[in-house]
Amino acid sequence: MSKIQHQNLLKFAKEVLQKAGLDEFSLNAVAESLCETSLRGIDSHGIRLLPHYVNSALKGRKNPKPNFKIESKYPSMLFLDADDAFGHAAGMKAIELGMEKADEYGIAAVGVGNSSHPGAMGSFALHAARKGYIAFAFTHADALLLSANGKRPFFGTNPICVAAPRKGMEPFCLDMATSKVSWNKVLSCRANGTELGEGIAADGEGNTTPSADDAKCLLPTGEYKGYGLASLVELLCGIFTGMLFGRDIPAMFTTPIDKPRKLGQFYMVLKADGCIAQNLFEERLLDMTEQISKEPTKGNDPVMLPGDREIKVASQRGAEGIPLDPATLEGLQKLSADFQIPLELLG
Amino acid sequence: MSKIQHQNLLKFAKEVLQKAGLDEFSLNAVAESLCETSLRGIDSHGIRLLPHYVNSALKGRKNPKPNFKIESKYPSMLFLDADDAFGHAAGMKAIELGMEKADEYGIAAVGVGNSSHPGAMGSFALHAARKGYIAFAFTHADALLLSANGKRPFFGTNPICVAAPRKGMEPFCLDMATSKVSWNKVLSCRANGTELGEGIAADGEGNTTPSADDAKCLLPTGEYKGYGLASLVELLCGIFTGMLFGRDIPAMFTTPIDKPRKLGQFYMVLKADGCIAQNLFEERLLDMTEQISKEPTKGNDPVMLPGDREIKVASQRGAEGIPLDPATLEGLQKLSADFQIPLELLG
Repeated sequence: MSKIQHQNLLKFAKEVLQKAGLDEFSLNAVAESLCETSLRGIDSHGIRLLPHYVNSALKGRKNPKPNFKIESKYPSMLFLDADDAFGHAAGMKAIELGMEKADEYGIAAVGVGNSSHPGAMGSFALHAARKGYIAFAFTHADALLLSANGKRPFFGTNPICVAAPRKGMEPFCLDMATSKVSWNKVLSCRANGTELGEGIAADGEGNTTPSADDAKCLLPTGEYKGYGLASLVELLCGIFTGMLFGRDIPAMFTTPIDKPRKLGQFYMVLKADGCIAQNLFEERLLDMTEQISKEPTKGNDPVMLPGDREIKVASQRGAEGIPLDPATLEGLQKLSADFQIPLELLG
Repeated sequence: MSKIQHQNLLKFAKEVLQKAGLDEFSLNAVAESLCETSLRGIDSHGIRLLPHYVNSALKGRKNPKPNFKIESKYPSMLFLDADDAFGHAAGMKAIELGMEKADEYGIAAVGVGNSSHPGAMGSFALHAARKGYIAFAFTHADALLLSANGKRPFFGTNPICVAAPRKGMEPFCLDMATSKVSWNKVLSCRANGTELGEGIAADGEGNTTPSADDAKCLLPTGEYKGYGLASLVELLCGIFTGMLFGRDIPAMFTTPIDKPRKLGQFYMVLKADGCIAQNLFEERLLDMTEQISKEPTKGNDPVMLPGDREIKVASQRGAEGIPLDPATLEGLQKLSADFQIPLELLG
């Protein structure tokens, strides 16, 4: 499989997005998030989406030069009207506003309206956690998660993400969809003609099916509990922000590409030293990480905290390059040709 | 099965706790939480625990007349030193402090230290949601949840709870343990000589077992995702608050009853009108509830939001009385005899 160095991929993505018309803040947010997400091994939300994002900027779904508006009824609770910005730009703006307010008040909430798909929420939460904050990040998505007792989906795969700082180590980062697997897994099985396996997806009647071709929606993780968590995310991102919710949210790929999706996001940023010193918080979280890593294991895989596998992958891909699957490579090569920007692969 | 009217149970519990030496604030918090939890059908965390709590007050684990101390480095982030109070009293105090601060700043965080088992977190989150706030409530517990890839537990069944107000209806309330079932389910199967079923608990080597007798710990909901959520709760309740974490947390029933457990709790309270009007927030959440209830179902059970089943149960038990299983009834009758307080059963 072809590989590319992280810094070369980042440079390429920034140049492409600049030619697609994005302002400096937006292109940095989108490029850094996509490339870091690929670096961390979360390929479903990484650089493979660049052609789609470029297209959505060129065709008018997303505003490449948004005029962010900030409203606040309370000192430490803001509403960010993202002006149909890229979801990544809105998310990065929101987390930066949250950090500013948390410095003053200890905790801050930022609701985001009129944004779009923000990719992996870890990008924003990690940005804050690397600066010493505890950060919660949520976004909603179009209906794809089978409802508990239901025949069809109402909520999206609505992810939950929280990151927090550790002494001398990359932050703790829980970043999970409320579905068992991503829709990408279904698409990949369809493309390869392989079966999904049981208990992952459901057909049009809400019955589980092992067939990727018959799959119409995804099962929640932990059955009704994952469904419950998805409803909480909708409450924060759809209801609280005043955006659309449930089955009214326009789909990512089947909605006309000139139509803004008007998605919501929701962030909470906290100072980590509310009860104990910052240093002690970070040391204690590292101590927990080290204790966990020494727990007796059932097989060859160690016991780890969420996100620690991604830290290992990032270190490996940082050294060896980020692999690009054939479809992703083809998409990037087309962008390279269209925009006359060289794509420097490894080896 | 014997039944008791909610108000009679509440009166009984308050009188018992008063004789056990609790101050007014503590006894109201404990009695109201236990009785409401039983009313809502969550019997594992309800009135059956009263004898244990009375014992723990009499024997010195819990401080029946705590002297709460509040520290704050930031305007909207507090640390509540609960002085070994009942977990319910600490939780109620924390959520009240959170509401006060949220009124001023929009959002508030309260970390609690030196507290004990707070029962069902819904008690505190609902208290705030009925007054119009969105409330997050977390507590940790002693190691009982099998670690992902591990042979034994590191985290507890660490619950996640969020409640939010709805127009003319009891609040939305997600209140879930990060285990698939409660330990009480294992104990109940042991008592009745029935099997647990597969995929619920694990033995001393971390292998799933259908046998309640062999069960040593519980499986997380949604496998590694539930484990990840439990680690987040530990980060908030154990690491952030400066309390013990992981395998160092003393167990609820096997630790000597004169030893304080020094547990942490963590709350966030938000104004619901940060982005849109309060009325509109509450109407939109009701609208989502109504839309969900009309979704096509697979069987006879309707599609519902988390906590809506408990609202139905509370209405039914409010009319027909709260059932008391034989062991719970025996415990209450013993308290009735010991403290010379009449227990007025129905019928």
